Formats: sequence, C-alpha cells, structure tokens
Amino acid sequence: MAQQHLDPTDPVAGAVTGDALAGYLRAQATEFLRALRVHRETGGEGGAHARAKSRPAGNGSVDSVDAARALRRSARRISASLHTFRPLLDPDWSEAIRPELAWLSGTLAMEHAYAARLDRLLLALHRLSGAPVFPAQAGTGIAGGTGIAAGTAGDSAAGVHSARAAGTAADGPLGAAADSPSRTASDAPDPAADGRVAGAASALRQAAPPHAGPPAPAPTPDRGNLTVGAAKAGALLERQLTLARTRAHSTALQALGSSRFHAVADGIALLASEVPLTAAAATADLRPLAAAAEERLTDAVAALPLVTAGHPYNAEALIHGLSPDPAPHPQDAPWHQVRLLLRLHRYAREAMHGGDTSVDVRLLAAGQSLNRHRDASEAAAAAAQAARTPRIAPATAYALGVLHADQRHEVEAARFAFQQSWQMQRVGTS
Amino acid sequence: MAQQHLDPTDPVAGAVTGDALAGYLRAQATEFLRALRVHRETGGEGGAHARAKSRPAGNGSVDSVDAARALRRSARRISASLHTFRPLLDPDWSEAIRPELAWLSGTLAMEHAYAARLDRLLLALHRLSGAPVFPAQAGTGIAGGTGIAAGTAGDSAAGVHSARAAGTAADGPLGAAADSPSRTASDAPDPAADGRVAGAASALRQAAPPHAGPPAPAPTPDRGNLTVGAAKAGALLERQLTLARTRAHSTALQALGSSRFHAVADGIALLASEVPLTAAAATADLRPLAAAAEERLTDAVAALPLVTAGHPYNAEALIHGLSPDPAPHPQDAPWHQVRLLLRLHRYAREAMHGGDTSVDVRLLAAGQSLNRHRDASEAAAAAAQAARTPRIAPATAYALGVLHADQRHEVEAARFAFQQSWQMQRVGTS
Repeated sequence: MAQQHLDPTDPVAGAVTGDALAGYLRAQATEFLRALRVHRETGGEGGAHARAKSRPAGNGSVDSVDAARALRRSARRISASLHTFRPLLDPDWSEAIRPELAWLSGTLAMEHAYAARLDRLLLALHRLSGAPVFPAQAGTGIAGGTGIAAGTAGDSAAGVHSARAAGTAADGPLGAAADSPSRTASDAPDPAADGRVAGAASALRQAAPPHAGPPAPAPTPDRGNLTVGAAKAGALLERQLTLARTRAHSTALQALGSSRFHAVADGIALLASEVPLTAAAATADLRPLAAAAEERLTDAVAALPLVTAGHPYNAEALIHGLSPDPAPHPQDAPWHQVRLLLRLHRYAREAMHGGDTSVDVRLLAAGQSLNRHRDASEAAAAAAQAARTPRIAPATAYALGVLHADQRHEVEAARFAFQQSWQMQRVGTS
Repeated sequence: MAQQHLDPTDPVAGAVTGDALAGYLRAQATEFLRALRVHRETGGEGGAHARAKSRPAGNGSVDSVDAARALRRSARRISASLHTFRPLLDPDWSEAIRPELAWLSGTLAMEHAYAARLDRLLLALHRLSGAPVFPAQAGTGIAGGTGIAAGTAGDSAAGVHSARAAGTAADGPLGAAADSPSRTASDAPDPAADGRVAGAASALRQAAPPHAGPPAPAPTPDRGNLTVGAAKAGALLERQLTLARTRAHSTALQALGSSRFHAVADGIALLASEVPLTAAAATADLRPLAAAAEERLTDAVAALPLVTAGHPYNAEALIHGLSPDPAPHPQDAPWHQVRLLLRLHRYAREAMHGGDTSVDVRLLAAGQSLNRHRDASEAAAAAAQAARTPRIAPATAYALGVLHADQRHEVEAARFAFQQSWQMQRVGTS
C-alpha cells in the first residue's frame, strides 16, 4: 500500500508539488480529447446499435467502445484529482466542472454496465446448469444463433459470446422437455419470455443434427443442458437488460450531442492547455492531501466487517436474500464506498508518481475484488427484479432464485478476496 | 488421527486382541438392549405421533427419542465392528445379522432425518429472510402457533422451535402484501400450500397486536419479515416433509413390531452374553484390521478434490444447481462414501481403545463436517423437489430456488470445513 508518508524508502520521498499535478491533469485531459476524437470518427456506434450491422464490419464498433472506455477512464481520473487536490485548484472552476464530469462518466458507464451484467448473468446460468462454457459446437451455435447470440455483438469478450451461443445451441431439455419434472411446473405461461425461448429453440433446431428431430423422447437428460427454467430465465434477463441497455445507449448518444457535454469538453480543452492552479499550488506539497485521501480509505476499510469477511462461507451476503424489500442491500453500501475511496487513493498515487510509475498490483487486486463485489451485487438485484415480472412460470422463478443466491455468494466471495488482498498489503508494508 | 500402526507412543502399542473386541461388542449389545427396553416402556411415541399429545406431558417422548437414538447408535457400532473385524467372527452369524442391523438403523433413522431436514430448511428460510432467529416475541409465537410450530413438538431443539414459532408470528408481509412486488407474481394459486399459509396467517392474527388489523397498508416492509414466497415455501416444505416423516414413523413402528426385528433383537441378546468369535480370535491382533479400515479411509480421502475444496468460494457445489436431473448430485457421492469410511475408522478405534478412551476431537470435527455435507445435500434436493410441485406460485418457486442454492453452498462450506480439519490432522500427526 502506498504509505508514502511513512515509508522513508519511497522513490518520491522528496516533495511532490503542484507541477506534478498539473502535468497529470494535462495528460488526462489530452487523453480525454483524443478519445473523444476517436469516438466521433468511429460514429459512436459501439453499443446496442452495432447489432444492426454485419459482424465483419464491426471494427469501428470495437474502436468506439474502446474510445468510450478511455473517455470514462480519463474523466474519472480528472474528477478524482479535482476532489483530492481541491485546495490547489481554482475553486470556482473545479467546483463547476466536477459534477459535470461525474454526470458524464456515469451516463457513459450505464450501457457497458447493462451489457456486462447480462453477460455475467448468462454465464452464471450456464455454469449453474453444468453446461460447458466453451463447447465444441460453439461455431455452429454462433452461425445459427440469430435468437440470442446476436444481441450484444460489438463489445463483449469472445469467450462470453461462445458461452451464450452455446446456450442457444444447447440441446435436449428444450426439445425433449416432456419427461422433465420441471415441465409440470410451467403451466402458467410466460408470454414475455416465450417468444425468446421459441427463437432460441428454433435456432437450436437449425443447429441440431437431422436425426434429433422435434419432441422425440430423449434417453436421459444430460446434466450439461439448460433446463426450461434456466433457458426462460436467460431469455427474460436478455430481454429486460437489453432493453435497459438500448435506452442507456440512446441516453449516452444524446448526452454526447448535448450543449452540456460541449461545455464539459470545452472545460477539458482548457485543462489540456493550462491547468487552473491556485497561486500557491506550484510549490505546495501534494503529499498531505494524498495522505488524507489514503486515511479516508483506511478509516472506511477499518469500519468494514473484515473479520467476518475473512471467515469463508460466513453466509452473511445472503441474509436478506429473501427480503421483501427490492432495494439494494444496505450491507453492500460500505463496500461500495470503499471501492470509490480506493479509486481516489489509487488516482492520487498516479498523480504523484506520474503515469509511468509501476502499478501496485495489490491495490489493483483489492480494487478488482470491489469491482466484482459491485457487479455481483447489481447482478443479484437484477435477477431478483426479473423474478418479480408478473406471470412468469414457476420454473423461471426458481432458476432466478438460484441465480440470485449464486450472485449473492459471489458478493460474499468478493468480500473474502478483498479481505485477503488487504491483509496481504498490511503484511507487505509492515 | 489414529495412526496406531505408525505411532510408537500410542498408549495401546501392545497387541490388542479379540478379547477387547468381544468386550466392546458385549457393551454395545447391552446398550442396545437397554435402549430397546426404554423405548418400549415409553411407548415408542417419540416422533410424529407425539404432536397429538399436549406438550407438558411430552417427557416420555423425549425419553423415547433418546432411546431410538441410542438404538441406532449401538446398531451402527455393532454393524461396523462386524464389518471391520469380519475375519475374527463366526462368518455365518455375522453375515446374517449385519444386513439386518443396517436395515434396522436405516429404518429408524428416516423419521429423525425428515424432521431434521425440515428444521434445517425452515431455519434457512428465516436466515435468508433476515428474520431474527430468537426474537423477543417467541413466547407469543409458541402460544399462538397452532399452524406450524406444533408440527414437530417432541424431538427438536428448543432453539429451532423458537425460530419456527417466530415464523408463524412474523408480522407484516402476510397481512400487508398488497404493496409487495412479489405479490404480483403470485397470480397462479398454490392450493397445496394455501391452507398452511392461511393457518400461519390466522395464528399471526391471533398473535398480532389489535391495531395491526387485516390488509392495512404497512409503512415500509421491514427486512426482518418473511416474504409471501418464503412463507409459502416454508409451508410447502412443512407439508411435504411432515408427510414423509409421518410415514417414516409408521414404518419404524411397524419395523419394531415385526418378527424380523425380533430376530435381530434375539441376535443382539446372544451377543450380549456370548460373542461368536472364531477359535483364533482370542489371541489375534486387531490392529492390522483396524489399520486396513484406516487405509480405506485414507485412500478415499486422497481421491477427493481437496485442493478445490480448500479454495474458498470455488462455486463447485452449485455447478449443477439448475441441472434438469432431479437425482442426487453425483459429485456428492465420494464425500458420502468418505463419511461412512470415517465412521468405520472411528468405531474401529473405539473397539481397540475401549469405550473410555479420549475422543479424537479432530476426527469428530471431520465427521461433523461430513454429516453437515450430507444434511445440506439432502436438504438442497428436498428444496429442488418441492419446486417441482405442480401449480406453485412463482414467488414460492423463487424462494425455493434461493433456498436450494443456499443449501448447495452449505454443501460447499462443509467440504471446505472437512478439508481444513483434515489438513490439521495431517499436521498434527506428522
């Protein structure tokens, strides 16, 4: 951990002044403007709209997604630096632009968040069904996968695509559900999801070998297949999260075309040429402010239930798994807060050590655990929310319940992982 | 661990002969006959039938349950000893009585297993709902708990009773479900469970303060209450497992009155007076046979995926959580097998060291982990099975899905705990 105020062997033990901060902010602003240019050149079609295009021509989309990510990345860093080193910056300017940067990175993040949430949940459904994530017939699945797999072309990892295509191509229960006990529980139809399932089923039929035929009595259901419930749950989540994602995409496009955004871009352009420091900033020491950021982090971590989190399988994260309250778990909030404080601390280190300093892998690991915590927490909420859809089949609801609990255990696992990497940091620096 | 063939400091390093085995078998047979006498004197009413009696008069039931447990306990030990030390015993006699003892302890165990499974699942439902397990109003709950809490009077721990009574007395969502989103998902009625829920709800109304009234809009749903889904899931499990338990009780009573049982009792009576050892047994060394039992255990443990199990949150146990196959998880079988081999090893140690030897707490801990593994595995299967009940409400199915996943994580946690205690044993004996 960066205890630069304690560690006499720190390479930057000499004073780090406002000049270093100005250099860092200029570099981030330049990166922001570069990413914005790329994003405009590639048409900003990185998201849901990319699915309307043919896949081979999707390179522009990939670039656009990278550009959007770079935009968010530099916006976060600028915003964090304005916060941590507030006393060194012209207060009028920095207080005005900081909320705008937060609005921008929040707006740009939503589309990616929905896409990643859907991928996480569909992957989990396959894992929970014992389906192979990289099956041999993935190629067939992609070729025939007009139902589900084409939904998110553009910004997902190829591995995730394979997994989702495999779901489309998964054989057995969908075609031969007559002997599946869960079939008896699906009397109440799920009109919302049925269309999707039918789509997946037809894709399945295209991909299936000729001898498989329609509803033939399959011998023994293979454990590697999706149940009707899992397939319907996946289709329901696909529908709901794709809709949310499409809306987020439109919102992001609107935001990037708005006068509000242009004001932000102007502010960043100013930053790239001249950082509005206070008069005293050029010679002021950054370290006390960075140390204060670290202290806020340390205090927040100290308030976490780390002893419990370090005890594997403590079953804390699922305590409200059946709570009637659909709101996010209150127990997650302090962890989300630490995630933000850890990021502020990491960016403050970057500002002081320059962008070319070696990355602290332990800080990175802790941060990744907290990202995983946030993602799993929100995915669990999405599963619980989907289970409240009216008139879904019991088998669908059951699968969503299993999925919800699985993601809450991911939450608990992420807390454990954070505790482990945090303890390691303590040992490493003491 | 008992590595008496390796450890020169073992207190019984001298030869242990068939005489010790005869003494052990006689003691267990005497205990069996004593327990049988108590069981007959108390009327064998320890189980489901006890609920027809009033609670203050239930002491006989408690004695009867203890007696049934003692019967199973000694039957297991006799059967295990006949197996491990087979070459030292009259083969005709031991081969004839061993399957009969297995039948007897298996038959007697079922009723307790169903009761314990129900308690485990209801406790988990409360934990998952964030409901306090020992709430202040537990007394009220017991007094008014004619719906659910009276179902298992007699052989459960008082704490469990409090928890279940608390469920009956839980306020809020049942009465004020109109504003709960999950209510919208319960259009499909669950005739099987509704009667029970109505019972619980009426008990609730009896226990509720007068101002609570029927369907009044509650302010904010408290996280400590059961959702409609959790309450219905609990009622469904209660109904299914109580039925299974009542049948098991009848089967056990029939078994204890059968001529087949009387033949077993006669065999045990013979054992209490004269153990049918072979001619060479009196001077034969028990240790090679006990060592062979330990070796079978060690080999089986070595075949377990202990590296995975020792990695917390490995998510292995839930891999088939949505599998269409309702059969028990094949991945659980080797653990169940180790559980049996560990028991054989423990009883072999008892036979050699005498009943008064100090208990190896590490062996006990490992065995308890495997018991927990078995219990959670079977509870998870019961939840999955209940979710296949036709025409249940989606909210019920959702709660059962969460419950199933929770119990599968208990399975994983038990494997982790076993791995930990097993590693400790290795360190302790090396």
